[in-house]
Amino acid sequence: MRDTYHDHLDAVVADLFEMSRLVARAVAQATSALVGADLAVAEQVVAGDEAVNALYRGVETRAYDLMATQQPVAGDLRVIVTSLRIVVDLERAGDYAVHLAKIARRRHPATAVPPELRDSFLRMGRTAEEIVRKAGDVIASRDVALAGELESDDDAMDDLQRQLFTHLLQHGTSDIEAAIDATLAGRYYERLADHAVAVGRRVTYMVTGEHVDVT
Amino acid sequence: MRDTYHDHLDAVVADLFEMSRLVARAVAQATSALVGADLAVAEQVVAGDEAVNALYRGVETRAYDLMATQQPVAGDLRVIVTSLRIVVDLERAGDYAVHLAKIARRRHPATAVPPELRDSFLRMGRTAEEIVRKAGDVIASRDVALAGELESDDDAMDDLQRQLFTHLLQHGTSDIEAAIDATLAGRYYERLADHAVAVGRRVTYMVTGEHVDVT
Repeated sequence: MRDTYHDHLDAVVADLFEMSRLVARAVAQATSALVGADLAVAEQVVAGDEAVNALYRGVETRAYDLMATQQPVAGDLRVIVTSLRIVVDLERAGDYAVHLAKIARRRHPATAVPPELRDSFLRMGRTAEEIVRKAGDVIASRDVALAGELESDDDAMDDLQRQLFTHLLQHGTSDIEAAIDATLAGRYYERLADHAVAVGRRVTYMVTGEHVDVT
Repeated sequence: MRDTYHDHLDAVVADLFEMSRLVARAVAQATSALVGADLAVAEQVVAGDEAVNALYRGVETRAYDLMATQQPVAGDLRVIVTSLRIVVDLERAGDYAVHLAKIARRRHPATAVPPELRDSFLRMGRTAEEIVRKAGDVIASRDVALAGELESDDDAMDDLQRQLFTHLLQHGTSDIEAAIDATLAGRYYERLADHAVAVGRRVTYMVTGEHVDVT
């Protein structure tokens, strides 16, 4: 019985890792759809979110079942509760990838990202993809030092977003729609990174019991 | 011992309720700071977030302590775990009120909201305040029907945000900064409402065990 129980616990963590990989790929695809006005890829991201949501529901159901039937204590309980919080961050990060893809879809066949912002968006996209990947690695490894790295990765993302807004303020855009889209997209990338940082902080809290503000 | 235990559990729920009231007030103040270019009120909202964060840390610490020392089962465990998820939504909702106040602060002594968008922002502010209050009532009452109401309240907020974006697209703004601020502020109100809805869904799941997607 206890073996089955730990198998279920391992499966929860494996599902969280799988979610992180799906989201990282969705971010990369959404960025490519945004800068390349690629409708097919945008649709893939939107459709692909169902797999993320299915994992979300699976983790939630399994975690509650484990708590109800196994009365886990101490360390195991902490893993389950942390998983139930991490799964929210990952599901939400997946939603941001979808939001990005939907901007690309709405503007198709036009490109949502003006040429002069293309590099900026490619950098934000790459940074977001990498930070989500790293959050997945933290889930799998429970490596607190790696979790700490997410903080400075997030600083880099905040800088990129600031640069984007500064550019928008100084140079404007061809039309108001481009300004709105760029503002929202910049915000989505930044929030994606925030959720990756939150994952790192939750794992750190799980491992060390030390409180780190998750905001 | 069990009485102390249930006192602690009640205190967790009372703290969540208190957080919801603090956030509702912060939203009202932030809106008034935004439309009235009121720096003092904006500063109050920013400073007031520490009280929300203190409650967040208190709920988190108490909930983990209860799980570690009391080995709660079934219903009680569900309340604790749900509380640990709700507290994230409320803390985050508080952050959005701060984001709104910071827009007002950054633009002071100018008014961040152009005159023609004033009514729109007042409506979003009132809707956000009311939905956060109702989420607090759901926490206190565990009233699943009331939680259901949050969904249609959120639809009203989504409509308001759409109207705002439509107005921006059709009429533009005096400058790009006003467009960026209005876009972000509209988004913050909408997210505030989303978190209130998430609170309602989590309480519903706690009470009924029925899965509702929280996105």
